[in-house]
Amino acid sequence: MSGRNNKSKSGVDTSRRGFLTAGLAGGAALAATGMARANGDPLITEIQDWNRYLGDGVDAAPYGMPSEFEAHVVRRDVPWLTADPVSSVNFTPLHELDGIITPNGLCFERHHGGVAEIDPADHRLMIHGLVERPLVFTMQDLMRFPRENRIYFLECAANSGMEWRGSQLNGCQFTHGMVHCVVYTGVPLKYLLDEAGVKTSGKWLLAEGADAAAMTRSIPIEKALEDCLVAFKMNGEALRPEQGYPVRLVVPGWEGNMWIKWLRRLEVGDEPWGQREETSKYTDLLANGQARRHTWAMEVKSVITSPSPQAPIAHGPGRTVITGLAWSGNGRIDRVDVSLDGGRNWRPARIDGPSISKALHRFYLDIDWDGSEMLLQSRAMDETGMIQPMKDELRAARGENSIYHNNGIQTWHVNGDGVAENVEVS
Amino acid sequence: MSGRNNKSKSGVDTSRRGFLTAGLAGGAALAATGMARANGDPLITEIQDWNRYLGDGVDAAPYGMPSEFEAHVVRRDVPWLTADPVSSVNFTPLHELDGIITPNGLCFERHHGGVAEIDPADHRLMIHGLVERPLVFTMQDLMRFPRENRIYFLECAANSGMEWRGSQLNGCQFTHGMVHCVVYTGVPLKYLLDEAGVKTSGKWLLAEGADAAAMTRSIPIEKALEDCLVAFKMNGEALRPEQGYPVRLVVPGWEGNMWIKWLRRLEVGDEPWGQREETSKYTDLLANGQARRHTWAMEVKSVITSPSPQAPIAHGPGRTVITGLAWSGNGRIDRVDVSLDGGRNWRPARIDGPSISKALHRFYLDIDWDGSEMLLQSRAMDETGMIQPMKDELRAARGENSIYHNNGIQTWHVNGDGVAENVEVS
Repeated sequence: MSGRNNKSKSGVDTSRRGFLTAGLAGGAALAATGMARANGDPLITEIQDWNRYLGDGVDAAPYGMPSEFEAHVVRRDVPWLTADPVSSVNFTPLHELDGIITPNGLCFERHHGGVAEIDPADHRLMIHGLVERPLVFTMQDLMRFPRENRIYFLECAANSGMEWRGSQLNGCQFTHGMVHCVVYTGVPLKYLLDEAGVKTSGKWLLAEGADAAAMTRSIPIEKALEDCLVAFKMNGEALRPEQGYPVRLVVPGWEGNMWIKWLRRLEVGDEPWGQREETSKYTDLLANGQARRHTWAMEVKSVITSPSPQAPIAHGPGRTVITGLAWSGNGRIDRVDVSLDGGRNWRPARIDGPSISKALHRFYLDIDWDGSEMLLQSRAMDETGMIQPMKDELRAARGENSIYHNNGIQTWHVNGDGVAENVEVS
Repeated sequence: MSGRNNKSKSGVDTSRRGFLTAGLAGGAALAATGMARANGDPLITEIQDWNRYLGDGVDAAPYGMPSEFEAHVVRRDVPWLTADPVSSVNFTPLHELDGIITPNGLCFERHHGGVAEIDPADHRLMIHGLVERPLVFTMQDLMRFPRENRIYFLECAANSGMEWRGSQLNGCQFTHGMVHCVVYTGVPLKYLLDEAGVKTSGKWLLAEGADAAAMTRSIPIEKALEDCLVAFKMNGEALRPEQGYPVRLVVPGWEGNMWIKWLRRLEVGDEPWGQREETSKYTDLLANGQARRHTWAMEVKSVITSPSPQAPIAHGPGRTVITGLAWSGNGRIDRVDVSLDGGRNWRPARIDGPSISKALHRFYLDIDWDGSEMLLQSRAMDETGMIQPMKDELRAARGENSIYHNNGIQTWHVNGDGVAENVEVS
């Protein structure tokens, strides 16, 4: 564990109003941000190729792709994390993104038997067990039920799991990149269960995927009826194959492995099944040898995405945007505080964009950085009053056997050159 | 003009509550939706390949793409519409999408000199003219100002332009597909103008693109200071090249050609410039030979996206989801009504998902279709009380020389087989 106790002097505090006022003051602020007077830059008087020659026409790209200059903005896996890439994970490049929506092509992947490539015409969803009418739905059948659109984050239970043992991976893509947030379109699961008629003895639901791992989880019927969706679209278009095309379960606020992808079967029963993925995995071994189970909700969490180890401050002292993400499986985020000095002093960040229950929230702190080293931290509070803990508080409560549900405060050390590093303060 | 006056009997009215109750009634409803009892479908007992063999691992697709079974969901151009694809348009496949967010790869394109492929390191934005301090910004400079995230629709002024002459193109992708809606991240333009210091004589802004067409428009300074953004991200990632990478202007609610892409220059002046694209184009020639100009706002509008000519009802009578989009450059949508009988009777649609000013709104009407022919229409009302007009009302007011700003009510005729066609009722 690379402990670090020295506190930085940190950048001078500037409220948003103060920052903007300072920005208008003239010469000093201009010099600080590096902006040039209009007559000082040859790129203004030169005519570039893109101004001189016609570009591609509207028939060039039926499905558009990012600029070649964004080729570094990709999901990345860490080969040594797992034995084989078919039962593994890659990570959302959080440090390159902004706002609260994750583009479909950059949503992290986690699968247990590779990506099932399903022909929707041959896909069926069966509902059976303790129901009045066992049913089989084609995709077309599902499209005939009333639909809803909802924005939710999805976080893998193992997100930040390596951090239980201290700072390990150098970049928020790797420490926190098993989270994404999209708009889902789907049918409330309640409508399908009502169609089948759940018997009064039906208290649990088993959801099973059609992939080679037949990923399977037990879900209490109350949650299934409350807010789960059977979703077929994300961000407006069909689900991506790695996200469960043609249909997945959406289990708002709860750990990602319960959001069964390639959903083929829903069985109603009277007790939880105790399948492999809810016994040997996705339980939390405590110090006393007992395991916590049914730890479904993803608790309040946040991370600064820039500056961060993959996104250093490249422009030197002066105006600097600190930004990050916060989320909670229990509802909305009420507040995010940011510290520049490893938790000694905190100031409220600005949450910008829609604040939606169980969705990512984007926060900013605009500072005038004086070039001194910083120990950056963010700390989120949700609408239930839950506050993100220190990692050491988690370890004291749960021991050090855990992999899942690490929502501890993350620290980046930023040196005088703007280079950031994953560290831990105690 | 393919006029059509015969009114269908239309499907039996079912309120949402009534519809769901009916769905629970059992045998009749099940037969109507085509859902099979669980033991009747061989695809449930067979083991498909995707359940038998491992799929691709997490290292297969650093930037993900849609399923091969979605290859038909693409932007499409209409070659005969324009002389050359470098000054042309392609269309968003609205009939295949749901919710209010358009995926970046499917946002329609309109450019006047092809797509500029810009290296952001060599791009500059200059602010000059009637300002205290002419300035040049690098992309890094822009990233140092406070950012905001906002969801807006963007509609081309020429969207539905062919419909002035009666129903022409068979599909909402072509009649209404010059609209998209994404989350923008950017800097309020006001902050940049304040940095430069607009002189009291400065009343207009000229925005110019760095593409081969040097697309240029005049914008009143009040609008520039009110809610325009200098945006560098869409749906969380960098702008796509065809949408102005690395930086574009966002002019909420106003016609798309003013949202200058590849933004390289902002000049402050004391009157509008009268450039080519605001004289010979993007003005509205009236019957008396005079032209309307400065017709900036996109008025209240809606369209049913499914069923529609490219998205017929494929499942026969019974439960049917009617869905569409509504939007207004003046604010939120307050109400959408749907008619099944060419405007004789109207019923309120359900608006689902966030209702955001100057963003797309998604609406649904869930019906139990009896298989009789329908004349489907939608009619939106915005928060200012503006109601979408009939196309003939527009023609009566503006004559038939117009191309732009057709926000008339669209009609789809649906026959007993569920096949839809673009028609006009009068």
